[in-house]
Amino acid sequence: MSLIECVPNVSEGRRLEVIELLASTVRSVNGVRLLDFSSDRSHNRSVFTLLGDAGPLEDAVLAMFGCAASQIDMRRHRGVHPRIGAVDVVPFVPLAATSMETCVALARRVGSAVAERFMVPVYLYGEAASAVHRRHLPDIRRGQFEDLAAKMGRPDWTPDFGPSQPHPTMGASAVGARRPLVAYNVNLATTRLEVATAIASAIRESRGGLPGVRAIGVPLPERGLVQVSVNLTDYARTSLLDVFNAVKTLAAQHGVDVLESEIIGLTPAAALGGAAPADLQLLHFTPRHALEYHLNRLDVDTNSGS
Amino acid sequence: MSLIECVPNVSEGRRLEVIELLASTVRSVNGVRLLDFSSDRSHNRSVFTLLGDAGPLEDAVLAMFGCAASQIDMRRHRGVHPRIGAVDVVPFVPLAATSMETCVALARRVGSAVAERFMVPVYLYGEAASAVHRRHLPDIRRGQFEDLAAKMGRPDWTPDFGPSQPHPTMGASAVGARRPLVAYNVNLATTRLEVATAIASAIRESRGGLPGVRAIGVPLPERGLVQVSVNLTDYARTSLLDVFNAVKTLAAQHGVDVLESEIIGLTPAAALGGAAPADLQLLHFTPRHALEYHLNRLDVDTNSGS
Repeated sequence: MSLIECVPNVSEGRRLEVIELLASTVRSVNGVRLLDFSSDRSHNRSVFTLLGDAGPLEDAVLAMFGCAASQIDMRRHRGVHPRIGAVDVVPFVPLAATSMETCVALARRVGSAVAERFMVPVYLYGEAASAVHRRHLPDIRRGQFEDLAAKMGRPDWTPDFGPSQPHPTMGASAVGARRPLVAYNVNLATTRLEVATAIASAIRESRGGLPGVRAIGVPLPERGLVQVSVNLTDYARTSLLDVFNAVKTLAAQHGVDVLESEIIGLTPAAALGGAAPADLQLLHFTPRHALEYHLNRLDVDTNSGS
Repeated sequence: MSLIECVPNVSEGRRLEVIELLASTVRSVNGVRLLDFSSDRSHNRSVFTLLGDAGPLEDAVLAMFGCAASQIDMRRHRGVHPRIGAVDVVPFVPLAATSMETCVALARRVGSAVAERFMVPVYLYGEAASAVHRRHLPDIRRGQFEDLAAKMGRPDWTPDFGPSQPHPTMGASAVGARRPLVAYNVNLATTRLEVATAIASAIRESRGGLPGVRAIGVPLPERGLVQVSVNLTDYARTSLLDVFNAVKTLAAQHGVDVLESEIIGLTPAAALGGAAPADLQLLHFTPRHALEYHLNRLDVDTNSGS
């Protein structure tokens, strides 16, 4: 048995009945645990954390596509987070002794099934990518849903599976495999987007900032804030505390306060870098947000069961 | 508010977890009641009875398509009941003061949405049919899933919505509007299919049999039986008792006993023609199988609620 984490990002963060339908769809699949889900109204996006073996995870992801196909119309989707489709991105993450190869094979199998059953074009990404220029989500997402038809017409952006035109209501999906990643947002007490954008530029690895950090600045108009939205791909080198301190220092140089920060989904406890949740002004952090909390429970269940 | 019954027939009658997923999907939709569902292993088919207003029923049917798209592959489907697709047929039936026009409009809206979201070709049928030769399900189903690609290439069988080729895993769907109909099976204590087929021919209206009766003979190899599978479209003229007695008399002429009969889904109590359930050797008939039982409950709920 393989232990795999799967973290589908779905382009719906506002209609609670749709989010609940997605969650209950996952819960209905035997052999899959829905560890966590969280929604963001400004992003208009929800992130689900699933845990299971390859076969049940494939069933669960296909069921989520089915639910999204019936409920989400990308032509009407508005949100500040970049996205290409209704089920925007589906990463598979190897845990415990599971190999990356297992997750790459699973991503290919799920991508192929999604294209066949839902006629949704699929890009393989991360470790499953079919070309170097498709490894990184920001490259796949560039142009977003609205420019997808033109992008897909280019030979270097032919999808890995499915038709070479976007699904009318579902757009396209990125399905891939990657190492554990922490999604982390730092909210700033200002409406000046240029501050968040400048800080994001300064800390991201590709501009010579912090190792293993990707970051963008996004507005949260409904809250009258801006946000530095961060992915950490190597928290052993750059922890949440490192990111928080860097953002705080840079914000102070703009005369702006950090209001709070938040982790999306689950995180290995070590990613905090030894900080207490309060040190990071973390919203809603409890032991349940630590990945280990669920893995430990799983061990208990596994040992006591069949 | 309109009161509409919807009776989706889905091509899965064996995998209990899929049937339960479909049922829980319907239950998750606000404003829709799942009154009944029943599955048949030999038919490999399940029939769901939903009640609600047009908007919620549209949501529920789309959600069922999503679930079916994720779980059913028609290339692997085997069953004795004729079928063209994963969500084989979706009839909308006007109840109470709801007009047929309301159900025809709903069938068109749902058919169009199904084609757009799931790329499944849709035939409108019954009162919603776009041509006389498409009114009757047996004509739409002739050739079944396996011959659908060839049939769709003919100009008289271009789908009303969606592509002119079958969906690879979902096939096609018939979506329509009709008057209330009772689905009724009479099981014979023989394995001789020719007996069921001869009886079905003798009683069906199109061969000069009983008014408002459609019938086919089907084998139930897993049970070592054959079945006369009947639809009654006008139970005021031909009741279940009339059908049962006709089948029993004809079976006796072949030296065959009637073992039992069964109603699929719900039926207006009047359809029994004054017979007691035992007179029809009915399996599983309780007050909950009478449509009125649920309509009366609905009145109570409606009066006591908002």
